[in-house]
Amino acid sequence: MTTIAFLGLGSMGAPMARNLVAAGHAVRVWNRTPERARQVPGAQPAPTPASAAQNADLAVTMLADDRAVEGVTFGPEGLLRTLPPNAIHVGMSTISVALAERLTGAHEAVSRRFVAAPVFGRPEAAEQRMLWIVPGGSEDDIARAAPLFEAVGRGSFPMATPAQAALAKILGNFMIAATCESLAEALALAERAGLEPERLVAMLTGTLFGSPIVQAYGGRIARTEFQPAGFTVPLGLKDVGLALEAGAAHQVPLPLASLLRDHLLAALARGRADWDWSALASVVREGAGLAPTRNGTARA
Amino acid sequence: MTTIAFLGLGSMGAPMARNLVAAGHAVRVWNRTPERARQVPGAQPAPTPASAAQNADLAVTMLADDRAVEGVTFGPEGLLRTLPPNAIHVGMSTISVALAERLTGAHEAVSRRFVAAPVFGRPEAAEQRMLWIVPGGSEDDIARAAPLFEAVGRGSFPMATPAQAALAKILGNFMIAATCESLAEALALAERAGLEPERLVAMLTGTLFGSPIVQAYGGRIARTEFQPAGFTVPLGLKDVGLALEAGAAHQVPLPLASLLRDHLLAALARGRADWDWSALASVVREGAGLAPTRNGTARA
Amino acid sequence: MTTIAFLGLGSMGAPMARNLVAAGHAVRVWNRTPERARQVPGAQPAPTPASAAQNADLAVTMLADDRAVEGVTFGPEGLLRTLPPNAIHVGMSTISVALAERLTGAHEAVSRRFVAAPVFGRPEAAEQRMLWIVPGGSEDDIARAAPLFEAVGRGSFPMATPAQAALAKILGNFMIAATCESLAEALALAERAGLEPERLVAMLTGTLFGSPIVQAYGGRIARTEFQPAGFTVPLGLKDVGLALEAGAAHQVPLPLASLLRDHLLAALARGRADWDWSALASVVREGAGLAPTRNGTARA
Amino acid sequence: MTTIAFLGLGSMGAPMARNLVAAGHAVRVWNRTPERARQVPGAQPAPTPASAAQNADLAVTMLADDRAVEGVTFGPEGLLRTLPPNAIHVGMSTISVALAERLTGAHEAVSRRFVAAPVFGRPEAAEQRMLWIVPGGSEDDIARAAPLFEAVGRGSFPMATPAQAALAKILGNFMIAATCESLAEALALAERAGLEPERLVAMLTGTLFGSPIVQAYGGRIARTEFQPAGFTVPLGLKDVGLALEAGAAHQVPLPLASLLRDHLLAALARGRADWDWSALASVVREGAGLAPTRNGTARA
Repeated sequence: MTTIAFLGLGSMGAPMARNLVAAGHAVRVWNRTPERARQVPGAQPAPTPASAAQNADLAVTMLADDRAVEGVTFGPEGLLRTLPPNAIHVGMSTISVALAERLTGAHEAVSRRFVAAPVFGRPEAAEQRMLWIVPGGSEDDIARAAPLFEAVGRGSFPMATPAQAALAKILGNFMIAATCESLAEALALAERAGLEPERLVAMLTGTLFGSPIVQAYGGRIARTEFQPAGFTVPLGLKDVGLALEAGAAHQVPLPLASLLRDHLLAALARGRADWDWSALASVVREGAGLAPTRNGTARA
Repeated sequence: MTTIAFLGLGSMGAPMARNLVAAGHAVRVWNRTPERARQVPGAQPAPTPASAAQNADLAVTMLADDRAVEGVTFGPEGLLRTLPPNAIHVGMSTISVALAERLTGAHEAVSRRFVAAPVFGRPEAAEQRMLWIVPGGSEDDIARAAPLFEAVGRGSFPMATPAQAALAKILGNFMIAATCESLAEALALAERAGLEPERLVAMLTGTLFGSPIVQAYGGRIARTEFQPAGFTVPLGLKDVGLALEAGAAHQVPLPLASLLRDHLLAALARGRADWDWSALASVVREGAGLAPTRNGTARA
Repeated sequence: MTTIAFLGLGSMGAPMARNLVAAGHAVRVWNRTPERARQVPGAQPAPTPASAAQNADLAVTMLADDRAVEGVTFGPEGLLRTLPPNAIHVGMSTISVALAERLTGAHEAVSRRFVAAPVFGRPEAAEQRMLWIVPGGSEDDIARAAPLFEAVGRGSFPMATPAQAALAKILGNFMIAATCESLAEALALAERAGLEPERLVAMLTGTLFGSPIVQAYGGRIARTEFQPAGFTVPLGLKDVGLALEAGAAHQVPLPLASLLRDHLLAALARGRADWDWSALASVVREGAGLAPTRNGTARA
Repeated sequence: MTTIAFLGLGSMGAPMARNLVAAGHAVRVWNRTPERARQVPGAQPAPTPASAAQNADLAVTMLADDRAVEGVTFGPEGLLRTLPPNAIHVGMSTISVALAERLTGAHEAVSRRFVAAPVFGRPEAAEQRMLWIVPGGSEDDIARAAPLFEAVGRGSFPMATPAQAALAKILGNFMIAATCESLAEALALAERAGLEPERLVAMLTGTLFGSPIVQAYGGRIARTEFQPAGFTVPLGLKDVGLALEAGAAHQVPLPLASLLRDHLLAALARGRADWDWSALASVVREGAGLAPTRNGTARA
């Protein structure tokens, strides 16, 4: 049994924490809005990140963005104030490469450990312990966090450093958005040419293109089902921005990422902040003179 | 037993014709350079497309490009001069949407039938009867061509018209090139950041991205193995050009296709005409200050 | 006095032909719709290009596109049937580099001469003899056509061959469209940020950016005055297409031209075929959540 | 006579400060490396920004980037500690829109004034009092800073707020980079087609494109003279980045700016940090299979 502080009980964090409880770990939970602690029966609510991390073996952060992770780590009531010497901070949300590097250094400086372990999967996958995990850090640290990964996921792909794990996750999200863009262009042309979009998706997934990503997003874009969102446009824009930021840091132009950014930004400009990020397809559709969604009003 | 004229014995056509012979059909073969007929034992060589198509039930074209199909169909010794009234011309190479439309009309005008049935798969798949087929035409015509499809492929995804089948194939190739571009950008950034490209590909294919396309091209691009080519840069450029042409005809901007075209054109400008079309990644690499291949000489 | 056959009396051709009459030349005119010959008093109407070119010193073509020039040159009643041995065909409309090469060869083969001499300027400039001319051909031929150029323009920039003159004109039009795109992006951002677009244009033209092109198009785009068109979206799309075609022929990727093509295509998809080509700015505006024109209805 | 604190004596600041001395103002100068104060005879060196700003009527900042301006303004020895109540801080370097807004608010909060007044022009223009100035702030404040502007520039284009002045300057620099990109693509194609690049530039500047920007950069790019730099690649990248940042803040996609960023980043990746920012053309050239410069070694 491991004592785990779990910080952040959003749509991903809550089911992950529940799975940790179910696996028999001692779980202390904290959330910015404390009432969400009720969503994790069997866990012990903590009033601050610092109190949750006290005496913990592992402290997990599953938060919205870099700023939230920084606050919960370095803030006046942050986990670094109390995390025991040998304990590991496991950052499981998507963070920037720069923050992964900063966290690595900051923990080392005070003889604590940091492992980045971002995940692939939506809330349903979190519920079903079906997340894919990309842990990055020393082999020892990753081994010590293994019980955590086993309790929430179905497999992991270790990377050499936290920064590389953060990058791998960011690049995965870039690949998803790129898949959406290519599907969006193909399906807009199909629709204008009278080729039923869902038939084209069936051909793609039935032949050589059949990954879970193409299946999930191909169907969504063919049906132009952009609401409710699984992952919103602003979140997608943030992650594509992290890819561009990492590209700039390493002097790597990413013209396709630039294109994705422009289309996500256009979706935002048109008031679609609560649409799924695959709604970059709605912008592609409008460029082709189609309505943003198939049931919508024609544009031109 | 069906009598089949098979026109075009390149690296795809020859194994397909052999499989037709093996399936027990009466096969007459023609190729621009006649000595290649020897590669299909059991088939009867014909001196011209017209003589091959005489009394045939089906005439298959498997040729390099639009111009070759036009010549073999409409030329002075073309198949349309002799194809029997009820017979079907099955175009299995990748052709433009415009040519698919022209062939449909030209055959109808003389009471012949045209089915476009482009295929997905490389020569190895052709050898092993593992092609995916996308037949487009009337249901009756497609049903009559079924023995042909069964002898060379493992499944088919019918479309309503030859033009739509041509478009579906073109869009499939566009999706492949788009996948290469996204992999190229992700892997260039990974390499510059010290993240082993093959580890990233393993993560992608092991999690949610694992289609045959991502597996095949992810490995190639991670290893920067652009020679020998499975499908060359000029062929890729031609097919992306067909997508852009169809986009223009239907007023659909395809910015990602434009990007692919520019990268393939740059590969050509740098003298890589005999490299695999995934070598658009070599251009992405150079943009990032990397050598075109990992064993090559550094650029900057 | 020179005898000049003038073929094509559109909004550019008619005022040019009038200026030739005014300069004292013997002018024979032909137009596809013959009644337009009335717009050139003092010129002698001819029933066909061939009859117009009979005994002419110079035959000028000022037509819509490549196809029209080909018909008027090579058709059964085309100018090449009658053009005297020493006479020069001067092509003054914008044509493809490939057609310029074909015309050069075809004329040489029958001991006639071809000079490409495309012009910069709109109908008002044609009226006022203020066109800029870019003649391409042998120095002798250009010198012999000088009286023509003097009668219609205010200056010329000779190129070594007809193909180079055609290319220079195409690149000039590319530069105009590129200027429109940069103005469109800058002014869309200015408008969203509350910076009055016309004030920004005044700053640009008043400081270092003040070319006639920036002045003309800056004002148009700032005021979103896309109708009536000086040069329509489809014509702009055609010319950007000629640049991309020349780029492909010489293996030169032109990513900015690709972007322009996509924006012009999107304008067409939205039903703006009769808007000025600077209306690519309307597409940029919509990407930013602005109405296509400032008096239009907001988008999002 | 106005008492002016001049902070930042780089290649732009030093000649500007000299012109202020020449105009009869009392000038106190500070620079991070103090020995540069010697370049402004007649000015009084100050050990810190705070001491320079003491009792000043105007405090001018002419510094490398946002970070430098922030340090000199808000730092422990920053100008805000001593600037008198009625005095104006005039920020003349290119800063982000966000910093312009922050400076405006911070000065208002302590009853000081901020005017952004970025300039167009290179060091030679600074020397000759030929800068163009874009002041943004209240009319009163701009009027009070007029003696400063008169002493260093040849004209000004006032904007309503410091943020708008900052944006106008950023957009001007974006327009310059966009002009370089369009020239680069046109000239690369010209060169590959055998059309002498300098002849094309002569045609452009001689006809409708003849702005100072096209003249200056057209010549540079035609001759591929990227060294010595007037304004380096990293500085250009920074300013294009400021445009993209402002675009993101206002939800305005800027696809051309994204393209410029990618090309500047590629130039950096290839080790051209000390080349002129017009060297984005070197990247365009390489895409076309040309050497980075005309005297360089061919690529392919």
